[in-house]
Amino acid sequence: MGRRIVVIGGVAAGATAAAKARRTDEGAEITVLEKGKYISYANCGLPYYTGGVIKPRKKILLHTPDTYGKRFNADVLVSTEATSINRKSRTVTVKDKNGEREIPYDKLIIAVGGKTIVPPVTGIDKTPYFTMRTVDDADAVRKFIEKNKPKTAVIIGGGFIGVETAEAMMHCGIKTTIVEAKPEIMPNMPRIVAMNLREYMEEKGISFRLGVFARRTEKTVKNKIDISLSDGTLLKADMLFLCAGVAPDTKLAADCGIEIGQTGGIAVDDTMRTSDSDIFAAGDVVEKLNRITGKKVLLPLAGPANREGRTAGFNAVTDGDMRFPGVVGTSIVGFDGYSAGQTGLTYEQAQQAGLDADYVYTEDADIAEYYPGATYIFMMTVFEKKTGRLLGCSASGIKGVDKRLDVASAALYAGLSVFDLEHLEFAYAPQFAKAKDNLNIAGFVASNKIRGTGYAVTPEEFAEVRRNQKIQILDVRTVKEHDDVCVEESVNIPVNALRENMDSLDKNTPVYVYCAVGFRGYLAVKMLRNSGFEAYNVSGGMETIARLQKIV
Amino acid sequence: MGRRIVVIGGVAAGATAAAKARRTDEGAEITVLEKGKYISYANCGLPYYTGGVIKPRKKILLHTPDTYGKRFNADVLVSTEATSINRKSRTVTVKDKNGEREIPYDKLIIAVGGKTIVPPVTGIDKTPYFTMRTVDDADAVRKFIEKNKPKTAVIIGGGFIGVETAEAMMHCGIKTTIVEAKPEIMPNMPRIVAMNLREYMEEKGISFRLGVFARRTEKTVKNKIDISLSDGTLLKADMLFLCAGVAPDTKLAADCGIEIGQTGGIAVDDTMRTSDSDIFAAGDVVEKLNRITGKKVLLPLAGPANREGRTAGFNAVTDGDMRFPGVVGTSIVGFDGYSAGQTGLTYEQAQQAGLDADYVYTEDADIAEYYPGATYIFMMTVFEKKTGRLLGCSASGIKGVDKRLDVASAALYAGLSVFDLEHLEFAYAPQFAKAKDNLNIAGFVASNKIRGTGYAVTPEEFAEVRRNQKIQILDVRTVKEHDDVCVEESVNIPVNALRENMDSLDKNTPVYVYCAVGFRGYLAVKMLRNSGFEAYNVSGGMETIARLQKIV
Repeated sequence: MGRRIVVIGGVAAGATAAAKARRTDEGAEITVLEKGKYISYANCGLPYYTGGVIKPRKKILLHTPDTYGKRFNADVLVSTEATSINRKSRTVTVKDKNGEREIPYDKLIIAVGGKTIVPPVTGIDKTPYFTMRTVDDADAVRKFIEKNKPKTAVIIGGGFIGVETAEAMMHCGIKTTIVEAKPEIMPNMPRIVAMNLREYMEEKGISFRLGVFARRTEKTVKNKIDISLSDGTLLKADMLFLCAGVAPDTKLAADCGIEIGQTGGIAVDDTMRTSDSDIFAAGDVVEKLNRITGKKVLLPLAGPANREGRTAGFNAVTDGDMRFPGVVGTSIVGFDGYSAGQTGLTYEQAQQAGLDADYVYTEDADIAEYYPGATYIFMMTVFEKKTGRLLGCSASGIKGVDKRLDVASAALYAGLSVFDLEHLEFAYAPQFAKAKDNLNIAGFVASNKIRGTGYAVTPEEFAEVRRNQKIQILDVRTVKEHDDVCVEESVNIPVNALRENMDSLDKNTPVYVYCAVGFRGYLAVKMLRNSGFEAYNVSGGMETIARLQKIV
Repeated sequence: MGRRIVVIGGVAAGATAAAKARRTDEGAEITVLEKGKYISYANCGLPYYTGGVIKPRKKILLHTPDTYGKRFNADVLVSTEATSINRKSRTVTVKDKNGEREIPYDKLIIAVGGKTIVPPVTGIDKTPYFTMRTVDDADAVRKFIEKNKPKTAVIIGGGFIGVETAEAMMHCGIKTTIVEAKPEIMPNMPRIVAMNLREYMEEKGISFRLGVFARRTEKTVKNKIDISLSDGTLLKADMLFLCAGVAPDTKLAADCGIEIGQTGGIAVDDTMRTSDSDIFAAGDVVEKLNRITGKKVLLPLAGPANREGRTAGFNAVTDGDMRFPGVVGTSIVGFDGYSAGQTGLTYEQAQQAGLDADYVYTEDADIAEYYPGATYIFMMTVFEKKTGRLLGCSASGIKGVDKRLDVASAALYAGLSVFDLEHLEFAYAPQFAKAKDNLNIAGFVASNKIRGTGYAVTPEEFAEVRRNQKIQILDVRTVKEHDDVCVEESVNIPVNALRENMDSLDKNTPVYVYCAVGFRGYLAVKMLRNSGFEAYNVSGGMETIARLQKIV
C-alpha cells in the first residue's frame, strides 16, 4: 500500500501539492479535503468573472472535483471541512453532511490559505456583506446584482481585492466608493505610486474615502446599508464589500500545537516542513523567507503559493529535500487598463528592515517615444546606499509595468545592483522598448547618485531644503512648460539656453534644478557644476514634485 | 583650453559618446563628424517611418545638428566625412564640400557603425536598389513609392531589416518577396522560431524564396528589375532592397593600423579603448565580449551601442576606467503584431562554442488562459547539461515575447540556471501573466530533464529513435485532438483514461508519449514510469512535432 498523503485545501497551493505528489509517486494514496464546493479554481479571476470580463462561468473552474480526481488519481472530498489534526494518531477529523470521521495520514499538507479579515466594526455581524474569495462569493455577488439591480456599492479596503472589486462593480454599472483606513490605497506600495492608480480610478468614476474607517454598519428598512465613518460622515449603499485583506488561517495548525511564526503564519523550513516533520504547509497559511531582508514575511500571492505547494507535494511523498528559496515579493494590480505594482521592498520597508536605503524617481516612455502608442511609466527604485544593491522597484502606468517589475524581480532574485541595471539588455525594436530601457535609466540615475556624479536629490529632500535654507530654484524646461505649471519662486532658463545665461544666477547660493522628469535637469546640473556652481538635480522632476505635492 | 574630443559618427554610439563626454566635462572641446546630413536620428524607426506607421517625418529626427550642438555644446559637422586618422599628428582628415582639412584631437572616438553588405551578385552595381540605413535611404524609398507607385518589391536578405522592410512594404500595399540564402529567415534564431514568424508573414501576404540566392540583377527597359536566382528562376519587381546585413566599417581604423579583431570588428578592451589608448571605439564597428562564452562577437544592436558610447565618452574625457561588461545578446523582430526574438545562445551557437548544451521546447499562454485575449508563446530554452546554467532562450508569439526575453536576458546576465528559473517571481494578475509563468515552466521542464525526473526527449531525439528502434507512440490528448492531427502510428489514450487502459500497452517496448505542448505527456510518463513502463515525454508536444516536420 502506498503512502497516505492528505492535503487540506484544494485551491492554489493544495491543488498543486496533490498534483506534484501524484506526478512524483503513482503509488501514493492521495486525499484532498476542501471545505468549499469547488477545487483548483481560478481564484485570482473571481473579480473579473464577477465584472463580466471573464465568461462563461465555467472558465474559472479549471477542474471539477471529478476531472481533477481522475487526472491525479486522488480522492477529492469537497464540502468537507477538516476540524482538527490529531498528531499522535496521525489522523484528520473531518466533517461533512454525513457527520464527523477520521482520515489517517502518513504525511499531511496544510494548504488552507487565508481567512477574510473582518474589521472591528459595530454591527458588521448583522449587516449583509460580500467578499471575493471563493466561487460561491462571486456567484452570490452576481446573483444579488441580477436580482436587485443595485446602484451603489461601498468597498471596505483599498488593497488588491478592493481595487479589483471596484473594477468589477464599474463594469456592472454600479457607483462605487472605496473606504481605506490608511491615507492612500494599496498600503504596501509607495504612496506616490498608489496615488497614480487612485487618480486613474477617480477619472473612471470610483470614489474614495481615505484615512477614515467604518465605525458602524447597519441594514436599513429600505434595504440600504448605512456605513458610519470615523469622521462622522455617513455612506449609504446597496451593497457592502469587505476587502480588508486576509490573515493566515492557522487555527487547525495552532490547535494541534504546530509552531506559528512571529508574523502569524505557520512556521516552515525551506522544505515546507512545519515543526512536525510529518506535516507540511504551503501557500497563504505559511510565512515566507524574504530573500532581501532574510526575515519572515506574509505574502499571500498565487505564484509563491503554487511553488510552495509543488515543493511540499514532492517532499511529502519522497522524504526529499526539494527547497523553496524564499521570495522577493512581486505583485501587480490592474484597474481597467492601468496598472501599479511592486517588487522587493519599498523605501519604508527597507528602512524598517534596518537597511541604509536610498531611492530615485524616474519616468520614461514604455516604448520608443516616436512610435505610436507610447505611454509613460513612473518608477521608484530603492537601493542600498553604499553597495548599490537593488532593494526594490515600484512602477505605475498604462503599459509595460509588468515587464519592468518582472525584470527587476529577476534582478532582485539574483542579488544584482543598480550598477548592473545599467547594463541589462532588453529586446529592443521601437514597438517593444527603447534602446535605453526604463530600468537602464533607473540604473543610470541611481548609479550616478551613488558615485556622486549625478547630484540628484529626491523631491522630498528638495522640499526639506527649501524650508530651511536659502536656495535658487531653476526650471530648465521650455518657457511653455514653465508657464503651464512650475515650482513657486523658480526661475526659468531652458536647458539649451543655460550656457549663455548662467550669469543671471548667483554662484554663492546653491541651485536646485528641475525639469519634467529629470534628464534635462541632469544636463543642467552638469553644466552648472562644471562652471563652479553648487547645483543639484531634483530626481523625477516637475512630474514627481507635482505628484508629491498632492500627498499631505 | 579643454581637452579636444573628436567623435567620428553621430548616430547611436557616437551621439551618446559625445553627450556623455559633455555631461562629464563641461570644459572639453567636442567635435562630432557625421558623413550624412542628420545626426542622432531614430535609425531603428526608419522602416516604420517608411511604412507610414511613424509620422510625421520629424519624429525620427530626434535632434537637428543645431539642437544637438546647442544642448551639448558640441561642434556638429554634418555632411563631413572622416577620410583618415593620423595617429602621429593626432589629427583626423575630413572632407566636406569645401575640400579637405585636418581636425586635431586629444582623444578620438570611432563610432562609424556598420556598412551595408553588398552580396556578390552580377550586375548589382548597375541595378538601382534601396537600403534602409539612413534617413536619406528612407526618404528615397518614400519618394520613389510616391512617384512611381510600384506594385512589387524583392528584398534580398531575411534578417531584422529585411523583415521590418517587408512590413513597411506591406503597409504601402506593395507585394513583397524576401530572398534568403539560408534555409530559413532570421538565421541567428532557431529555425523553428524563425519559421513561426515566417508563416505569420506568409499569412499576411509576404512571399519567400528560401535557400536560394540572387545570381544576377538587371534593370529592364520597362523599369522593372529582373532578379535571377540560383535555382534558375527569375523574379521581377518594381523595387529591389538589399538587406543582407551590415559589417563593421573598419576601413578608417584598419588604415591607420588600429587592431581589428578576429570577428572583423575593431578590437577594444572593456573601457572601449582600441590598441591605441588615445582612440576609443563603440557601437556596430567594434567586436564585443559575449558574457556567456567569453568569446568576441559582432552584435550590431542599438542597446549595447548606446552603452558602449556612454562608456567611451566618459573614459575619453576623464582617462577613467568605466567598464562595459560585455553582452549576452538580446534581440527581437516584429512583423505587424507578431514577434520573435532571442537572448543568449541558440543551441547551435552553444554547440559551436564547445558547450555541453541541451534544450527544451515549451508553449504556454502569455496571460491566464481564462482571461480574454490570451495568446500562446512558443519557447526554446537552452542550458548547460550538467550544471543547468541558462545559455539562451528564444521565443515567438503575438504578445509578451519581449517580456520573457527581457527576464531571460537578466537571468543570463546574472548567470542564473534553469533551477533558478523555476523560482523567479512574476507580477501576476490574470490580465498580466499566469501564476506559473512561461519561464517558470521552462525552468520546471529543463530542471526535471537534468534531474532525470521528467524523462523529456526533444522531438528531434524522438524522430531519431523512431527511425532506429521499435517503440510505441502514445498520444494522450483527447480523441478530438488526435483525430485532427497526430503522429503516424500513434495510439490514442487520453491522459485522464490512461490508468485504466495501461494494459493495452506493451511493457517491454519503450513508450514515447506526446500531448499538445508537453504537460499532459509529462503526467502520462509519470503514470507509466510509476507502473513499470520505460516511458519518455516528447517536449513541446504535437505543436512542436508538427512545426519541426515542416523543416526538412
